[in-house]
Amino acid sequence: MAAEGKGVVLLGAWPGPFAIKVKIALLEKGIDFEDREEDLSNKSDLLLKMNPVHKLIPVLIHDGRPVCESSIIVEYIDEAWSQGPALLPSDPHERARSRFWADFADKKVLSSMRSVRYGLAEAQETGKKELAEWMKLLESEIGEKGYFGGESFGHLDLSLVPYYWWFLALQKTLDLGSVCELHLPKLEGWLKRCLLRGSVTAALLDQDKLCKFILQKRLPAAAPAN
Amino acid sequence: MAAEGKGVVLLGAWPGPFAIKVKIALLEKGIDFEDREEDLSNKSDLLLKMNPVHKLIPVLIHDGRPVCESSIIVEYIDEAWSQGPALLPSDPHERARSRFWADFADKKVLSSMRSVRYGLAEAQETGKKELAEWMKLLESEIGEKGYFGGESFGHLDLSLVPYYWWFLALQKTLDLGSVCELHLPKLEGWLKRCLLRGSVTAALLDQDKLCKFILQKRLPAAAPAN
Repeated sequence: MAAEGKGVVLLGAWPGPFAIKVKIALLEKGIDFEDREEDLSNKSDLLLKMNPVHKLIPVLIHDGRPVCESSIIVEYIDEAWSQGPALLPSDPHERARSRFWADFADKKVLSSMRSVRYGLAEAQETGKKELAEWMKLLESEIGEKGYFGGESFGHLDLSLVPYYWWFLALQKTLDLGSVCELHLPKLEGWLKRCLLRGSVTAALLDQDKLCKFILQKRLPAAAPAN
Repeated sequence: MAAEGKGVVLLGAWPGPFAIKVKIALLEKGIDFEDREEDLSNKSDLLLKMNPVHKLIPVLIHDGRPVCESSIIVEYIDEAWSQGPALLPSDPHERARSRFWADFADKKVLSSMRSVRYGLAEAQETGKKELAEWMKLLESEIGEKGYFGGESFGHLDLSLVPYYWWFLALQKTLDLGSVCELHLPKLEGWLKRCLLRGSVTAALLDQDKLCKFILQKRLPAAAPAN
């Protein structure tokens, strides 16, 4: 069994953005891995054993040893495998910038998305305003660049693309008011370029399926655990 | 002015753990820096300009360019300056382990400390139980090692020591019940070793002053912004 011995196993759960980030990183590096789906309402013994502190997905198990937390896993993948392209930039300031915006998405964008999905009326309104602000910030941050890191796809692109994919699905499914009219041509162009990559299309969810999932899970009790 | 031109400026605020981490990292590397104290009730234009997204300390300004978020700043310091000891370990799995526990402190330990300081009765009780659990986890994690990374002081030690220092001050000042009776000989020994370092004693706050600060700031309205 790969999780106990040699090899790479990813414990993830459809359709959270955290495991998608890790999956894109693995595919970009050309790493063979076993993609194991967790049932978050009935977590496996393996997940509880491999991430006893947080008990959350994703967990990457490499030769029997776990690495937890998606942002830490992505850096681990970049450092542990020399094959494939470097995911993080080499310049220290660019690395810090890439980590900053990836962390921004994990905290700010995710939090606002949760507010618009599960919040009470007031929290939903705040979430909508924030979400619009965050997307405008990201639109400004990519500017005229092809990718967030410059000319090539990398760490920040794979960290942000699951959130933008979710944002598009939220626009299609929820009553987000003026958020649905946001004009984000730079992000749209960037997404098109990202979708030309096999790693991204393989890891992202079918947009229609994601929309159905969002519509089905509007009750707070059904909030995903990741 | 160093913040606009050449040099290194740290925007911090007494006595939060985030800026302490960064200060220890700078001192370990032997980097000259200007330590600028922010008034969080009246944030400077410089802070708002350098960290417009979060508007939080710490911010490291290096040759006029900002780096934000303490964990990102510490990695930046390690990568941008080759002088002094490497802070993070070189082995990818050890790097991931070090990042994991540093992140654990920033999230779990900090959150439980806030609960015991500012929470209502029930939240305080939960916070106490969690804090005891986290400290036992860290006691087990250091085990027989001299430092969290092994034989020498590094990334994980500087990331955890401000929290342990705060934990001791909370034990002295608040009614933490059984948390005050925790037996943590490994962490105590580790702290003694850490306190032999000039970087740690220079960056940590005088324990009596910290205790006074905690006693003065028990009202939720006075919660620190970092």
